[in-house]
This record gives sequence, C-alpha cells and structure tokens, in this order.
Amino acid sequence: MADYLYGINPISEALSGQGRAPQELVVARGKQSPRLQALIEQAQGVDIPIRQRERRDLDRLAGHDQHQGVLLRLEPFRYADLKSLLARWRQSGRPAFFLLLDGITDPHNLGAMIRSAEVAGCHGVILAKDRSCPVTPVVEKTAAGALSHLPLCQVTNLARTLEQLQQENVWCYGLAGEEGAQSLYQSDLRGDVALVVGSEGKGLRPNVRKHCDGLLAIPMRGQVNSLNASVAAAVALFEVVRQGEGR
Amino acid sequence: MADYLYGINPISEALSGQGRAPQELVVARGKQSPRLQALIEQAQGVDIPIRQRERRDLDRLAGHDQHQGVLLRLEPFRYADLKSLLARWRQSGRPAFFLLLDGITDPHNLGAMIRSAEVAGCHGVILAKDRSCPVTPVVEKTAAGALSHLPLCQVTNLARTLEQLQQENVWCYGLAGEEGAQSLYQSDLRGDVALVVGSEGKGLRPNVRKHCDGLLAIPMRGQVNSLNASVAAAVALFEVVRQGEGR
Repeated sequence: MADYLYGINPISEALSGQGRAPQELVVARGKQSPRLQALIEQAQGVDIPIRQRERRDLDRLAGHDQHQGVLLRLEPFRYADLKSLLARWRQSGRPAFFLLLDGITDPHNLGAMIRSAEVAGCHGVILAKDRSCPVTPVVEKTAAGALSHLPLCQVTNLARTLEQLQQENVWCYGLAGEEGAQSLYQSDLRGDVALVVGSEGKGLRPNVRKHCDGLLAIPMRGQVNSLNASVAAAVALFEVVRQGEGR
Repeated sequence: MADYLYGINPISEALSGQGRAPQELVVARGKQSPRLQALIEQAQGVDIPIRQRERRDLDRLAGHDQHQGVLLRLEPFRYADLKSLLARWRQSGRPAFFLLLDGITDPHNLGAMIRSAEVAGCHGVILAKDRSCPVTPVVEKTAAGALSHLPLCQVTNLARTLEQLQQENVWCYGLAGEEGAQSLYQSDLRGDVALVVGSEGKGLRPNVRKHCDGLLAIPMRGQVNSLNASVAAAVALFEVVRQGEGR
C-alpha cells in the first residue's frame, strides 16, 4: 500500500526535504485556502503530478478526515537486505551491533527504537515482517532522521535470521522480564551482539526466544513491573554502549 | 481546570478502577447506544451524578469530538509536597533518588518518564510548574499505573528546589548533551542523587543548569545526535540503578 503524508505543514516539509521522494499531490475538489494554494505552487516547483479528487477519496486514502484537503503520495520505503547489514558491520571495523524487533506494532515505539538504535551506533535494525508495523510517515517522523543513516531490514522468519547471525558468531540476546533471565548488568555484552526485543504486551514469541543465546532482564525496583518497550530497548542498547567503552 | 476522561471503554475502566475518584458523568443529549446505556447504569452503581448536556458542550469540554457522547469528570490530581518526598526517601533506608523535570510539555513523554522513574525505584518526581504539562489523563495512562505508587511534586522554582536538595547532601546532575558535560559512564552516581532532565527541544534553562553539581552526557555514536527525552531520562535512571547494584 502506498504511503500518504497529510496536512499542509508536513507536506511542505517533505517537498523541500531529504526524505522519501514525493510522487503525487492529491488535492480535494472545492475551495482552496491561500495556504493550500501556496502548497500547490510549491509542488509545481518540484515538478510532481497534482491530481484533484473528491474529499471522501482523501478520507479513504488517509484513513481519517484530518488531512486539511491535501495528501502527498511518497515513493515506497526502501528496506535493505540482511546481506547489506552484515556488510555494513564488516566495513565498520567495530563489533557487530544489531537490534531485532519481534512484533512492535505501535509506530511511535518503532520510530523511537530506530532512533535509539542509530544513536547507540547499531549497524542495522531487523523487523519481523508479519508482526511489525511497516515504516509509515509516523515511524519516520518519530525516528527523527535516523532512517537516513541506519538500514532497516524486513525478514519473514526471525528465528532463521537469528541462526544466520549465530553462524557469523554474533551472540543473540532476548530482552525478557521473566524468571530464567539474567540481569542485564550481570551479562557480558562485549563483542558481536544482537538484541532481540518483543512487543510490550506479548514479549518474544516462544520460537524466537528459544533461538536466543541468552535472555536479559532489566532490574525493576518499583511496583509497576514493566517499562515502555522503546524505553526497555534503549536501556539495553546503551548498556551495550557502556560495556563497549570498557567501563 | 477540571480533567475529563472521554470514551466508553476508558470511562468504564475508571469507574471500576483504583485511580482518581470520578465526580460526574456528562452524557450528550439524544439517542444512546446500548453500550452507552450500560455505562450510565455502571455510573449509577457507583453513585455519581449524571448530567445531560448538548453534544457541542461535550466537544468544548473535551477539546475535540472523539468522545463518543460521554465524559467523566475526575477529582483534581493530588500533587505531593517536597517534604513528603524527602520523608519517603528517609523512610526507605535507601540512597536518595529523585527525578526533576524542567519543561516536559509532551504528555506522552511525561507519562513515560514517570513510569521509568517508578520502575527504577525513584522516591519521587519533581516538576517545574510553569514549564511542564500538568498531570492529565493522557499522562496517567502513559505512566501505566506508576502514579499510584510514586509521589509527584510541582514546584514554582526548580533552582530553589535544587538548593534544598543540595542542603540535604543530594547531588544534582543535569542531563545535557553539550561540551563541558561528563560521560554518564564516567560519573560516580552512587549515593544520594537527583537527575534533572530538560525538554527535548530546549534542554535545561541556564539558571537550572547553573544550579547542578554536574552535567552528564550520554555518549552518542550515530549521526542523529539526540535521543527522545524520555529515552534519555531512562538511560540515565538505569545507570543509577546499575551503579547502585555495585556493578
């Protein structure tokens, strides 16, 4: 399915920015505000097709009616393949550092995790295709530019990907809160590692968990016994950073 | 200003839950769905007043029209005072651990930080009154129950509060990314500490920064040189947890 941006300001930014290429501006039939007219002129300036459609068509394409009468169709997001992530690691001369996500369906959480992974210095992020939110404009916005620098790969079988990483001697750690997991702070996370993070509600699938070399738990000292998924991922990512600095 | 919850499911949960006491159910005039009728019966069961008003009044009270024809007015959120936070620390027998927030205006970020602070074992969270989002139902929802366990204090002068904590020999560290800050991982955060976190866009105010005993920076290894504010807060909170475990 195509990705549509909506709203005058976000579209104006996308027309002048560095992100995915704009492919078509879709404008609702009827009276146009001066701001919308200015946006249409901006789109003419970058030479993309402009199409008029009924307002209810825009409602349907956007999935809601908060679009201010204008949508921008973007080129599809370009996922990387696993090979290119591995090549990026080898070229970096640093220990492998990957983030694997199993079932992150909230686009804000997914975007925040991608941002944290980039800032922590990961070589790439790997998503389980069947259980994750795809890269939407909301994900890109929350990722705050990280997707321009960090390759993202979609895989159909995350357990198989874990095996592939293990064949490259990458240690795969699942983030889990339950019994049988080792404290994050008692684990040696130096060397080539991949962190596997599940959804906030359901955690890792049994088959994914079974394929991990170890399970890590963040110590919890309060009454609320869970962290937001993107917060938990960041705490683990930066523990890898800390140990990598030799402290 | 009063806090209104909206939507049939969230209101039903609040009527049967442990959170702030419900004070009045406001129902839009007109035809009522069976689900809304069931909700009204539930409200009758807990003996709160039920008032009918025009739908446009509900729009105005909620600030939008996504309320499904029903609002629940809640008792005002009860902030704690600084004294009770200090008492809680002394009673705990543990080193002081406070989170101070300077200018967190996004309710999701604020809620996530409160949740992380509770899970990390903080004794309380302190907000700068003039620059922070108040505790709204969105904040409470994102905090995932943490506000039932963790006291929250609003202060008019955060710099003055830092002085009060320093008089109690609590070391106050500001989270800052710039030059002059020490790496989070090179800092000794054992003992009595308070972390001060600013807004994502603007950081700490100069006067707040000046009152900190030290400035901490999270090492950034990527091209995107900033973390989401709630993620940054969590990384620092859990470094305190890690050092407190003696690892």
